[in-house]
Amino acid sequence: MNILAFAGGVGGAKLADGLMRAVGAEQLAVIVNTADDFHLYGLHISPDVDTVMYTLAGIANPESGWGIDGDTWQNFDMLVRYGVEPWFHVGDRDLATHLLRAQMLNGGATLSEATRKLSRRLGVDAFILPMSDDPVATLVDTDQGPLPFQEYFVKHRWQPVVRGLIYEGVGEAEPAPSMLRRIETADTIVICPSNPYLSIDPILALRGVHDVLLNATAPIIAVTPIVGGEALKGPAAKLMKELGVEPSAVEVARHYADFINGFVLDQRDAELRPQIEAMGMGVLVTDTVMRTADDRARLGCEVVTFADQLRPEKLGGCLLSSE
Amino acid sequence: MNILAFAGGVGGAKLADGLMRAVGAEQLAVIVNTADDFHLYGLHISPDVDTVMYTLAGIANPESGWGIDGDTWQNFDMLVRYGVEPWFHVGDRDLATHLLRAQMLNGGATLSEATRKLSRRLGVDAFILPMSDDPVATLVDTDQGPLPFQEYFVKHRWQPVVRGLIYEGVGEAEPAPSMLRRIETADTIVICPSNPYLSIDPILALRGVHDVLLNATAPIIAVTPIVGGEALKGPAAKLMKELGVEPSAVEVARHYADFINGFVLDQRDAELRPQIEAMGMGVLVTDTVMRTADDRARLGCEVVTFADQLRPEKLGGCLLSSE
Repeated sequence: MNILAFAGGVGGAKLADGLMRAVGAEQLAVIVNTADDFHLYGLHISPDVDTVMYTLAGIANPESGWGIDGDTWQNFDMLVRYGVEPWFHVGDRDLATHLLRAQMLNGGATLSEATRKLSRRLGVDAFILPMSDDPVATLVDTDQGPLPFQEYFVKHRWQPVVRGLIYEGVGEAEPAPSMLRRIETADTIVICPSNPYLSIDPILALRGVHDVLLNATAPIIAVTPIVGGEALKGPAAKLMKELGVEPSAVEVARHYADFINGFVLDQRDAELRPQIEAMGMGVLVTDTVMRTADDRARLGCEVVTFADQLRPEKLGGCLLSSE
Repeated sequence: MNILAFAGGVGGAKLADGLMRAVGAEQLAVIVNTADDFHLYGLHISPDVDTVMYTLAGIANPESGWGIDGDTWQNFDMLVRYGVEPWFHVGDRDLATHLLRAQMLNGGATLSEATRKLSRRLGVDAFILPMSDDPVATLVDTDQGPLPFQEYFVKHRWQPVVRGLIYEGVGEAEPAPSMLRRIETADTIVICPSNPYLSIDPILALRGVHDVLLNATAPIIAVTPIVGGEALKGPAAKLMKELGVEPSAVEVARHYADFINGFVLDQRDAELRPQIEAMGMGVLVTDTVMRTADDRARLGCEVVTFADQLRPEKLGGCLLSSE
């Protein structure tokens, strides 16, 4: 059984964790958005990769979902003393990741190699694959002008009105090594409940990815990031409105409709099932909100089991007895 | 009144602080050894510059003399969790200095420009000048083979037996901007009680420095780092023995004899006065051990007053009423 997940930050990391609990770490690979990556003090910061890595390592801050549990802010306070007003908060422990990654990258390692080393050292047996070793940078075109992603997201707290998105460099960037092959050979592919436009689309926009997904033999399941017309976290619903799309699970399903076989809809949106089924895909209605580790595992298990129902020959997969 | 001090780390920083207290920050410039500088995680670490900067800013750790008072080790602990065993301990707050310096250097600033900005932001009005903007690296030839300075000093705790010292790059490095002019125009030049071989010699070895010192009109005073045949801190006495030189204030005076006019000898070594006077220089015998801020100020004041006695026309200088 090998499961391939596509993920952005917190929401994606939670389901990746649930899938890991459901099928075992060795069976899971996670392709992670890197279009949010940026440089701070010359260090390469890869927020989504780190969120997935910390989550799978069991050390993520349980409140915020990002950063390291129990991290401190001495370094940040000293930067403030220096008169710097950093809009991106890096904890003292989190900074160790960025320092080691910088050292590896400066030494000639690729981002995917550095990620592999760092995640192994944190005891993560799942395979975390940054979507590309080449730079891709989301530029958010807003009513305040074009903004680099982190300025839009963190500095301006996603309040500017979005007119469009540009994934700079995506045309030239190579998908990370093994990524296309992993899509071709996966038993199940899961699009996590991440922001379709900010987290998943940059992955899909990489050369060859969409084509390989169209031809993939595995069931491809997307899990809704929109519940009751709202995003569970972050700007997905607001962004959809601004891009002229109704913020609804139906529109998320439509967004992925050409390549997914199944869609996981929240029980609060059960009435949308017929609209999504009409697009020619299977629909699982369940509780998609992951508050606890048990929620994650349960949803992970349900997604794997749902995928199994969408293929001719059952593979099984979920290790959890609750299912 | 303008005072120019040559300094390495902790001992030099303490006297620089005393001079600052004695004459006022605006009257003081400190030329600092950078041959101890090295790179860690791609960041430029400049230990002596930072020690002088933190000391003059009043934020140095009063116990160790280096690092920032009250600093924490979360980042270090996380590096250890990553399986790294860093032999150079960087505190969470200290790291802010290295991050900002890296950012400035990456942005094209020189080390002296970055130092100026950082020290100003910490409220330091004295002028701290790294000896060169170009790389110079002390290589310590030991019985365990040649060691980069920080490996000798920190990793091996200066226990290997030293056979010789090489200041790599010193022939090509330019003295920092304004350095030679500052030597020519200083009213008083003070060689702080730093390690003559590891901290002061790299400065003296820079092109033109020794010649300008030989021709300087200002009194040049050296303060002994050796008291009772021992270094107050660090490897100076051990190193002198290993280099075949008696670890004695007399030998320190001899080391600088061709360009200094006065030598400050500790009261515990008062009997050495005639030997040093015989080299043709003035000698001040006093308590050179700086335990408290008052000790620093008193010694700073005594050094300035001593220098004044060595020039034809008195300039005064010490602002402290105790003198």
